Amino acid sequence: MSVGAAARTGPFYQLGKKCLGISMELHVVNRQRLCRRLQDKWERLISQNAAPTPTLKGVFILLQGGSDTYHGDSDAANVFRQESFFHWAFGALEPDWYGAIEISTARTILFVPRIPDAVALYDGKPATPSEVAKKYSTEGCFYADELVDRLKQWDTTLLLTLRGMNTDSGRMTVEASFPGIEHFKVNNELLHPEIVECRLYKTKMELEVLRYANRISSAAHRHLMRCVKPGMHEFEAESIFLHYCYFHGGMRHVAYTCIGASGCNCAILHYGHAGSPNERLIEDGDMCLFDMGGEYYCYTSDITCSYPVNGRFTSDQKIIYEAVLAASRAVLNAAKPGADWVKLHQLAEENILSRLLQAGLLRGDLAKMMKERLGAVFMPHGLGHLMGCDVHDVGGYTQDSPARPTAVGLRNLRTARILQPNMVITVEPGCYFIDQLLDEALQSPKLSPFLVPEALQRFRKFGGVRIEDNIVITEAGNELLTDVPRTIEEIEQWMSSPAVDARL
Amino acid sequence: MSVGAAARTGPFYQLGKKCLGISMELHVVNRQRLCRRLQDKWERLISQNAAPTPTLKGVFILLQGGSDTYHGDSDAANVFRQESFFHWAFGALEPDWYGAIEISTARTILFVPRIPDAVALYDGKPATPSEVAKKYSTEGCFYADELVDRLKQWDTTLLLTLRGMNTDSGRMTVEASFPGIEHFKVNNELLHPEIVECRLYKTKMELEVLRYANRISSAAHRHLMRCVKPGMHEFEAESIFLHYCYFHGGMRHVAYTCIGASGCNCAILHYGHAGSPNERLIEDGDMCLFDMGGEYYCYTSDITCSYPVNGRFTSDQKIIYEAVLAASRAVLNAAKPGADWVKLHQLAEENILSRLLQAGLLRGDLAKMMKERLGAVFMPHGLGHLMGCDVHDVGGYTQDSPARPTAVGLRNLRTARILQPNMVITVEPGCYFIDQLLDEALQSPKLSPFLVPEALQRFRKFGGVRIEDNIVITEAGNELLTDVPRTIEEIEQWMSSPAVDARL
Repeated sequence: MSVGAAARTGPFYQLGKKCLGISMELHVVNRQRLCRRLQDKWERLISQNAAPTPTLKGVFILLQGGSDTYHGDSDAANVFRQESFFHWAFGALEPDWYGAIEISTARTILFVPRIPDAVALYDGKPATPSEVAKKYSTEGCFYADELVDRLKQWDTTLLLTLRGMNTDSGRMTVEASFPGIEHFKVNNELLHPEIVECRLYKTKMELEVLRYANRISSAAHRHLMRCVKPGMHEFEAESIFLHYCYFHGGMRHVAYTCIGASGCNCAILHYGHAGSPNERLIEDGDMCLFDMGGEYYCYTSDITCSYPVNGRFTSDQKIIYEAVLAASRAVLNAAKPGADWVKLHQLAEENILSRLLQAGLLRGDLAKMMKERLGAVFMPHGLGHLMGCDVHDVGGYTQDSPARPTAVGLRNLRTARILQPNMVITVEPGCYFIDQLLDEALQSPKLSPFLVPEALQRFRKFGGVRIEDNIVITEAGNELLTDVPRTIEEIEQWMSSPAVDARL
Repeated sequence: MSVGAAARTGPFYQLGKKCLGISMELHVVNRQRLCRRLQDKWERLISQNAAPTPTLKGVFILLQGGSDTYHGDSDAANVFRQESFFHWAFGALEPDWYGAIEISTARTILFVPRIPDAVALYDGKPATPSEVAKKYSTEGCFYADELVDRLKQWDTTLLLTLRGMNTDSGRMTVEASFPGIEHFKVNNELLHPEIVECRLYKTKMELEVLRYANRISSAAHRHLMRCVKPGMHEFEAESIFLHYCYFHGGMRHVAYTCIGASGCNCAILHYGHAGSPNERLIEDGDMCLFDMGGEYYCYTSDITCSYPVNGRFTSDQKIIYEAVLAASRAVLNAAKPGADWVKLHQLAEENILSRLLQAGLLRGDLAKMMKERLGAVFMPHGLGHLMGCDVHDVGGYTQDSPARPTAVGLRNLRTARILQPNMVITVEPGCYFIDQLLDEALQSPKLSPFLVPEALQRFRKFGGVRIEDNIVITEAGNELLTDVPRTIEEIEQWMSSPAVDARL
């Protein structure tokens, strides 16, 4: 793991000599792209007599970074993770910062909190504003309490703040606010769609970080596959993954709560949260479904490996695994510029249903099953999601993108876009045996004719299988970022190698 | 590691078969203690004609648990950690719960969110209210949207909600609130001081969990001591500690952000946060200061080990280490019921200064140094803090406790209490060479006469040493919970054993 090519000159971030180095140029380029989009937008608005200001003179983007979160009323803080829009724009990894960008020039100024001496005694001497400006390749840095004075001094005519809804969480962005903002004209509508569109398409430098996050996380999965064994608890598997990512890859955060499912828990799509905390004892004969991804420098990965804990697939496990693998490979072959994500989802469904049909779990006509949306019984979630600074990255649904489908199953898709180069997306078909959905389907006059109840009964406690890879759409098709054993042969061979001792 | 004695019958919590089992009786006892205190308080208030209600009939405590926190606007949540008052009372490990306790009877009812089917599909089928009531040993459980109806049905006359300031964070508790609370009479002043006083004194069952948290964290420190070596980064040390705690002890959370300091970073008291994220390369000859503590079931530990990364103390390292160890041992010998924490802090200072005097870093009269508060130059933080469900536990300063001292150094004490049985507190003397404080002292007419500048200069990049143990005050004195090598001989011997490979 060497320093990235882009990081050899100028300011860069690197955690430890063995982790990836990242040039601050990454953010310079991001800001330039954003400013160009807004300059174009202004021209259009001016031509339509709809611009909020006659020129871009004095128009600034103003973003507010994230703040610490705490355990209850105590002073125990979660390890801070920067808000993703702010990180994308500035790369700043510390809480309570502001960043201003002059749109006409892309000139950038950071504003950092003034740390009292008594706090510095505990937290360390903070970098001075001029050190911060240099470290982050910005044109300046001041204290946050100087925001009003500086913005006035620069004859600010308009502030663009960020307000918009995240279509995955249903939550709103934190809009920049500061004492004295009432002195300025503010527009909070123009920025969000433009920055979202910028984040949707990854730059070369961003792709380098995403490749690294996937490389380390893939290695962690491969390592875990050789450590896990019957008699281990799910949380021990989570711990092994976390340690590998941090120790070897400098990933202090993971991109999302680890899903360390085994046995019937594999049918719980987001297993692993505090209410179902990876607590089960993994038993001989169980399938594991480990959906875990590290993040480095706020760039994420999202990988799922499904395999038998003992390293040998049973014939029933093979049926379901092969069905999902067929779906995965079909989608990976078809994912390229111009491909319709909704159609790819249906392609995955079709592959899964056709295998279940072959194996005698279903009966009837495949085309009719597809029409009746039987696929959603076995794969209730979407085929995948955009990925970047957020694991469920922004841009899934916007004003200009295809709308959310309404059909059962398809409405759970996190995007319905036509794929384009430099989008990064997960491909994660799955096949699950979820009591609630099977019972509903067995009761459904439309769906029950396709089901073979006695065969399905055999899979009631099976859990499920998910295979999740991360890809970049390229001009030619796509680049697979994930590198883990995928075929049954590859998995069985990998897991038959000498066991690794994970106990330390 | 076996199931705790108390956990052999009735509902209990246990993560994995190798971790500690905890009976829900722990919380039943906590609630009974709290109700008894409030019953006594009501009697006093009634006798003073100051009670808000003529009897306790219909008076309920109402607590609101913590909620999830997220990364920015995304759906990536931090792994939920319950708010400590709520955990203390109910043991509930999931977000968005309420708990009501009828004070006259200690009858307890939980209120849980109603999870829609579409969410249950992702998060798993939630426990039913009757399952929750059984699991947590409460008299009942309903959905949170039934709060108003139930409280009315029970002829609620008054709700006691929790409002008070945390004297370590300066932040307020989250006071319970729900749609319809305006139908009820609410008092938010009476509860906080009483529940704080209850949390201050740990029960037998709580002590068992705190012992476990310390046992696992001590073992993790011992393991780390044998893994660490020159050329490792600080974050790798953090990762080793985290993995040990989680893998072997089921500790998904640590009690606070790991301080993985080395070299001059050892002088940064709360090193390790996002602004100084354990990123340094540890070099041969460096001291390490690893202040790390796991938590289990929201009960914390807080342990600091200081040692040379190469396992052999230099003569200068010995001077400082022996000074801090002398302070630590003096305090551990003197900590018992009736001891004054402020005096113990001064005892630690006196030991450190006297050793620095012996070693020629200081000159002059020890008593005069103490009077001029020279100790605060080398140990600017307090001797220790209460510990429990929060690592800086509540109860440090209350209406009835001794007030915060005003003298330099002493005003940083997190409590000024007289020790009493069943208090749990950290003993963490330290000696640091902090440029800011040394420069100020050298400029100070009062302090500079004590300093030997040329000797101190040798220690400018030394960093610092902290030795932190956790104790329970007992009738006889105290019980040491922490179990790590402490003397120079013990440390050198422990670290000379065959190196452990932490790379996996």
